[in-house]
Amino acid sequence: MSAIEELIGEFAKLPGIGRKTATRLTYFLLKQPGDAARRLADAVHGIADRVRPCSVCGNLGEVDPCAICADPRRDTSVICVVEEASDIGAIERTGEYRGLYHVLGGHLSPLDGVGPDDLRIEGLRVRLENGTTIREIIVATNPSMEGEVTATYVRGVVERPGVRVTRIALGLPVGGDLEYADSVTIARALAARREMAT
Amino acid sequence: MSAIEELIGEFAKLPGIGRKTATRLTYFLLKQPGDAARRLADAVHGIADRVRPCSVCGNLGEVDPCAICADPRRDTSVICVVEEASDIGAIERTGEYRGLYHVLGGHLSPLDGVGPDDLRIEGLRVRLENGTTIREIIVATNPSMEGEVTATYVRGVVERPGVRVTRIALGLPVGGDLEYADSVTIARALAARREMAT
Repeated sequence: MSAIEELIGEFAKLPGIGRKTATRLTYFLLKQPGDAARRLADAVHGIADRVRPCSVCGNLGEVDPCAICADPRRDTSVICVVEEASDIGAIERTGEYRGLYHVLGGHLSPLDGVGPDDLRIEGLRVRLENGTTIREIIVATNPSMEGEVTATYVRGVVERPGVRVTRIALGLPVGGDLEYADSVTIARALAARREMAT
Repeated sequence: MSAIEELIGEFAKLPGIGRKTATRLTYFLLKQPGDAARRLADAVHGIADRVRPCSVCGNLGEVDPCAICADPRRDTSVICVVEEASDIGAIERTGEYRGLYHVLGGHLSPLDGVGPDDLRIEGLRVRLENGTTIREIIVATNPSMEGEVTATYVRGVVERPGVRVTRIALGLPVGGDLEYADSVTIARALAARREMAT
């Protein structure tokens, strides 16, 4: 196979990239002056060579334990459980959370053959039993059917005296429009209504 | 910068890929088992290391002259002029063309500072004057404003006795719907109407 065909094939394996886009990307790189393709190749090699999951929380990074687990300013008594390492960035960007994380590596999905043993749930139990005292586990799996099932399962595993197990709130997204929200979200937002501060 | 940030940055330089998609692609590669990232990196390296433009026609490939220029079964008396090397694949897939190609490397665009000297037009003149007899030049630049301007310029350069200069037909796309075609295309299709075979 030619080098061009090979790269089109590799690009087309990426999610959301079909053969047409893969072809466009390949010829784009071929048209770039200088080292554009080489820089991309080195960057891809970089994640393959340098990025490792943190042995404590499963976050992806170049050091182990990861920068968050190793940060002495973080609150080690709270663990936020997420499905994927990429979710950590979304929460960190809020600047509102100072605790630690635990990455499950996906969600329970019996139809796809993903059971508890395929997720990093055992590691979470170990963190609760050894090490510093945990006051709260925030379950931040996705607000999807699988995310809810996973959240329920995680709660069962981590529940013990002295540990609060919380779930991130589901409701209307900020800046969203009630008129266009789906009815499941509206129902959740109604059920989770709170007293207004006076 | 971290390896993850670096790859997100490189992906985001590709056309049609924003920061969100770049992040998704990076984490997708990190989640793949085995050598997926390394295979992609090698494929990108492959085009940087192995792909060169053909010194005759400008087609991209791993040999020089390219497989088309070197093929003794091609009709060397016809040259099809295209904007980009990627256009050659589109024409080859029709299986209807047996002549040679000439890649301009873009189109004239004074606003972007692209003049005749920035395209491979001089090389086309050289091919007409040296080498085998050329009977026909098919100008297959894009049916866009710039493509038309470029086509007109190319015609001026290649016109000489004994050489037919033709332009690919503009009209309704096969399988298209008259109702949804834009009026410029319909006007072109009307102007280029032909007698029906009886």
